[in-house]
Amino acid sequence: MDSLIYLAPIAGIIALLFAYYKANKIGKVDVGTERMKEISSYIQEGAMAFLSREYKTLIVFVAILFVVLGFGIDWNTAFCFLVGATFSALAGFFGMRVATKANVRTANAAKESGMNKALDVAFSGGAVMGMSVVGLGLLGVGALYLIFKDAAVVTGFGLGASSIALFGRVGGGIYTKAADVGADLVGKVEAGIPEDDPRNPAVIADNVGDNVGDVAGMGADLFESYVGSIISAITLGFIAFEFNGAVYPLLLAATGIIASIIGTFFVKGKEGADPHKALKMGTYVSAIVTVVVAFFLSQYLLGTLKPFIAIVSGLVVGTIIGQLTEYYTSGEFKPVKTIADKSETGSATNIIGGLAVGMLSTALPILMIAIGILVAFYAGGGAANVGEGLYGIALAAVGMLSTAGMTVAVDAYGPIADNAGGIAEMCELPGGVRDITDKLDAVGNTTAAIGKGFAIGSAALTALALFASYTQAVELDKIDLTQPTVIVGLLVGGMLPFLFSAITMEAVGKAAFSMIEEVRRQFKTIPGIMEGKAKPEYKKCVDISTAAALKEMMVPGLLAVLAPLATGILLGTEALGGLLAGALVSGVLMAIMMANAGGAWDNAKKYIEEGHHGGKGSEAHKAAVVGDTVGDPFKDTSGPSINILIKLMTIVALVFAPLFLQMGGLLLKLF
Amino acid sequence: MDSLIYLAPIAGIIALLFAYYKANKIGKVDVGTERMKEISSYIQEGAMAFLSREYKTLIVFVAILFVVLGFGIDWNTAFCFLVGATFSALAGFFGMRVATKANVRTANAAKESGMNKALDVAFSGGAVMGMSVVGLGLLGVGALYLIFKDAAVVTGFGLGASSIALFGRVGGGIYTKAADVGADLVGKVEAGIPEDDPRNPAVIADNVGDNVGDVAGMGADLFESYVGSIISAITLGFIAFEFNGAVYPLLLAATGIIASIIGTFFVKGKEGADPHKALKMGTYVSAIVTVVVAFFLSQYLLGTLKPFIAIVSGLVVGTIIGQLTEYYTSGEFKPVKTIADKSETGSATNIIGGLAVGMLSTALPILMIAIGILVAFYAGGGAANVGEGLYGIALAAVGMLSTAGMTVAVDAYGPIADNAGGIAEMCELPGGVRDITDKLDAVGNTTAAIGKGFAIGSAALTALALFASYTQAVELDKIDLTQPTVIVGLLVGGMLPFLFSAITMEAVGKAAFSMIEEVRRQFKTIPGIMEGKAKPEYKKCVDISTAAALKEMMVPGLLAVLAPLATGILLGTEALGGLLAGALVSGVLMAIMMANAGGAWDNAKKYIEEGHHGGKGSEAHKAAVVGDTVGDPFKDTSGPSINILIKLMTIVALVFAPLFLQMGGLLLKLF
Repeated sequence: MDSLIYLAPIAGIIALLFAYYKANKIGKVDVGTERMKEISSYIQEGAMAFLSREYKTLIVFVAILFVVLGFGIDWNTAFCFLVGATFSALAGFFGMRVATKANVRTANAAKESGMNKALDVAFSGGAVMGMSVVGLGLLGVGALYLIFKDAAVVTGFGLGASSIALFGRVGGGIYTKAADVGADLVGKVEAGIPEDDPRNPAVIADNVGDNVGDVAGMGADLFESYVGSIISAITLGFIAFEFNGAVYPLLLAATGIIASIIGTFFVKGKEGADPHKALKMGTYVSAIVTVVVAFFLSQYLLGTLKPFIAIVSGLVVGTIIGQLTEYYTSGEFKPVKTIADKSETGSATNIIGGLAVGMLSTALPILMIAIGILVAFYAGGGAANVGEGLYGIALAAVGMLSTAGMTVAVDAYGPIADNAGGIAEMCELPGGVRDITDKLDAVGNTTAAIGKGFAIGSAALTALALFASYTQAVELDKIDLTQPTVIVGLLVGGMLPFLFSAITMEAVGKAAFSMIEEVRRQFKTIPGIMEGKAKPEYKKCVDISTAAALKEMMVPGLLAVLAPLATGILLGTEALGGLLAGALVSGVLMAIMMANAGGAWDNAKKYIEEGHHGGKGSEAHKAAVVGDTVGDPFKDTSGPSINILIKLMTIVALVFAPLFLQMGGLLLKLF
Repeated sequence: MDSLIYLAPIAGIIALLFAYYKANKIGKVDVGTERMKEISSYIQEGAMAFLSREYKTLIVFVAILFVVLGFGIDWNTAFCFLVGATFSALAGFFGMRVATKANVRTANAAKESGMNKALDVAFSGGAVMGMSVVGLGLLGVGALYLIFKDAAVVTGFGLGASSIALFGRVGGGIYTKAADVGADLVGKVEAGIPEDDPRNPAVIADNVGDNVGDVAGMGADLFESYVGSIISAITLGFIAFEFNGAVYPLLLAATGIIASIIGTFFVKGKEGADPHKALKMGTYVSAIVTVVVAFFLSQYLLGTLKPFIAIVSGLVVGTIIGQLTEYYTSGEFKPVKTIADKSETGSATNIIGGLAVGMLSTALPILMIAIGILVAFYAGGGAANVGEGLYGIALAAVGMLSTAGMTVAVDAYGPIADNAGGIAEMCELPGGVRDITDKLDAVGNTTAAIGKGFAIGSAALTALALFASYTQAVELDKIDLTQPTVIVGLLVGGMLPFLFSAITMEAVGKAAFSMIEEVRRQFKTIPGIMEGKAKPEYKKCVDISTAAALKEMMVPGLLAVLAPLATGILLGTEALGGLLAGALVSGVLMAIMMANAGGAWDNAKKYIEEGHHGGKGSEAHKAAVVGDTVGDPFKDTSGPSINILIKLMTIVALVFAPLFLQMGGLLLKLF
């Protein structure tokens, strides 16, 4: 029975082998013309330049935290932390490397063989990222648990993952929007050249940004949720069902990996058919396979179907949140159409409409999460057996994330398709190619929106599961809201996502400003650049955006780490519990609001560009462009960064729990 | 000793007598020309038409709730509820009546005697509102407590106040912005006539709106906080210090009334001096008198200075929050200047800048509230004596609100000065008059911003105090965040302010649309209207805005009442506690964010209009107008409405506590 646990790292290795196989297959696809090779090499070099610079900064951060953990907690935890950081960084590296290979090959496949092959290449690129994330995630957690046999130590792995996610999501989010704004504002608006024009010095940085934000950033975010939920389920499972309770989530994750691999074979587009259907088919197949195996595992390992119900509730909630996100952000439904409608009376009404949609769109996902929590808890054990109930909540998170291999694959497919379109444009490929890449890209926009909803939902459940683990770790039998310190924690915690969002939004503005200056400088000082005779200094733009992003993420990053530490030390573990709960509540709300408002503005603009309300160039379109610009930092920087904030704070609290137990509540001891 | 309690209703009566004296004095000031008489009669009629229509709808609402309370709880509570609703409605009626008398007389005083007299009339108008609020508030609470000797029953008075506040703030907020947008969009933008032009059919509705929103709405909001904090302090004081603990907040409130009356004598402008200084002087005098008396009362009545420290902490926090609000929203400081700066690059950067300022501006007020809570609790009694600690928190709220008579007076002064300027414009009074009213109005904008910060801060502390009373009423010894039902309550509660804001923002849009249609219709169908030969149908516009506002407030109003009822009945008292805490946290944050972003956008526009960044008509100005328009529903409708939401939900929970004790948690019993 004990040997079953070996299946977890084995499944991780299988995922990595499958990723390797897919990556190899992509490598064999033809790159296309010399020009395509050249352009794609710029993007790849830019992406790698960003990563290497980011990782250099990271090494300092990780080294400091490693020493702090080693001396403050213990060296085993510090070691796990190091492995977690390394594995998450590796997943990002693999994913980015292959994504920047797959983009140009997708364009070429569209040119040479049509939609079907192009979809295959783009999705395969995404699948490498997906499999790297779950493979390294489960290999890491599984192997470390086998070595240390102690979930508390393995929590260090989660903290490592969180650290990389912070850099990936926050730094990456700032990078991608700074590059985007720089490219658009100077290129499109000031110089009047089209999007993805190779004369624009920021065009490569912009394409790199898609990979940085939506491949590496999103991957690191879900890597963190994935390992966080599994670690939490191991902790709580051990309390509720002893060893088998810890094995169950590991086996479930292993099942999810195999199911995701099976699912990839179902992503097959027919020529002319909707690629979205193919992607959906793959997702459904993985989910169904996972559910069936989860049923038998639950019965066999734990002797009850209650954990199975919790798993299913997580999967169902995740799916519904994805659908709701699509409803609020897709041009096919009422919310986006209303915003487009309001654009006719100017940018102010467009902005109000988008903000209202964003705020409104929090209601149903929150109710779904609430129902999911209650079902998972009461199906798990309920008030009669709180331990099993909390285990149920952690399992709901694991259930939601079990098919992360497939989810990440579908998510990462989007920026690859987007890049393919950009390359087709820059290399002046025939119109038919752009038609195919546009179609793939349109699907990518929808999957990106759904993915964002999923990322928030899973971050919420993971943070909640980690929160439950935290209460166990600091031996709290209650976190009492009638205590003023808890209310204070709740208020300050609730404020942090607002502060964090303000800082990250400002950061985008500052980083974009450096970018704008640089693009203007190049247009002015490089002779022949506008005639396409001289090559812009693409690399310079990538460098500037990278440096600005890494500089600007310092303050929010420190905030996320220091706030829980300071609260735990000054006000104690119960107040820290309040802080985490407050951040969770307002964080999830702000993240949903910002992501959906941003998505809705974006698609309202696209809806108008399709010819509604006067189409491109109309007054309505101008208003919609304003909304889209406001939405950019909302949906691509501040919103997603909050996912990291709430998870990172919780895992910091969890890892440093022994410290707080020893010396927590310093300030209160003064009274 | 017992007879001391009679001082409370007596002070209330003194306040009302003083209000009567002030109102009489205003009545004796000359109205001015026939034209001024005419215009001001339109505004007065419009205001009264709004009130009478609102109160007619209210009667239905109040009657239903009266019966529900009578049968569901008890008839004494129902009776107190009726008195509370009546008193709050009366305060609104008195205040509005005198404000709409004072506006024209302020204009005439400016014309006949200059700044000093104009300030006196405008402030006296505000003082009538202030004294009516505290007079009726303290008379009601004091007398009812004397009659029933039971704070639980008097809570009904608070619920009555809350009901009127709901109509005043939410309905009034929708009304005022619908009228404003209608007047601006069709009048200024489409027809190209200046602001406050008598040819604009919506101009009267717009001027009425200033009174509806900033006099009646704000007054009802603070009336609710005022009585809510006193009632909560009585409940908690009785538990901590028996009868004297209940008497102390009543005497403190009585002191505050006398101190406020004394303060009004210090509001004396010197010709040419800054009127803001005069208003500040009055505020400081009232605060100092209150603090000195509070010191001796604390020692004499309760034998300890701990409650005194709690009182001072509330007063200090309230003052600092006001100052912080000024910092974030005044054109003199960096945040607003930055937004003005960003307007140069267009409306999108203006919007992002305003949102970032709004979010950022939550941090320090929240920290101040947090420190205030801790000081009040630990000074009060701390963990060693939780009862006295909670009493400390309620006293902080009472301390903050003790000088509400002065605060409301200063707040209500603003719209009177604003109206005076409008009347001067409409009646084409000499330029010198407009100079004076502009100066008074500019001060009014600052005091309005400070007042909004104060209203939010006091709503937060009052809601918190009522929350503490709630935990006592439902006999909860804890509200445990490790319980999934509490987390669910917290999540759903946190979501409600987002949903509420979305609905109220949409409501403004819908109501404004009816208004726009009507103004357009009048411009089209009334011949000679543009030449000033035919009179527009002002009344029609007032009616339409009123009807739309009352219709649109139904859904958010029901939400505020039904959400706590449903949660209490389905999930029980502990989950309801979570709901209240969640709504409190995200509500305070959203309210601060929206109020400050709105204020900052408004003043960034004004700052540009003063000649910076190209001044009026520049591209920066156009961008700033977009921000101002987005900010309007933020700061005048949705933001202030949240104050009501969090207080109303808490007081509904408190009043219906016996019901939840009897049959709470129905849903959970199914498991």
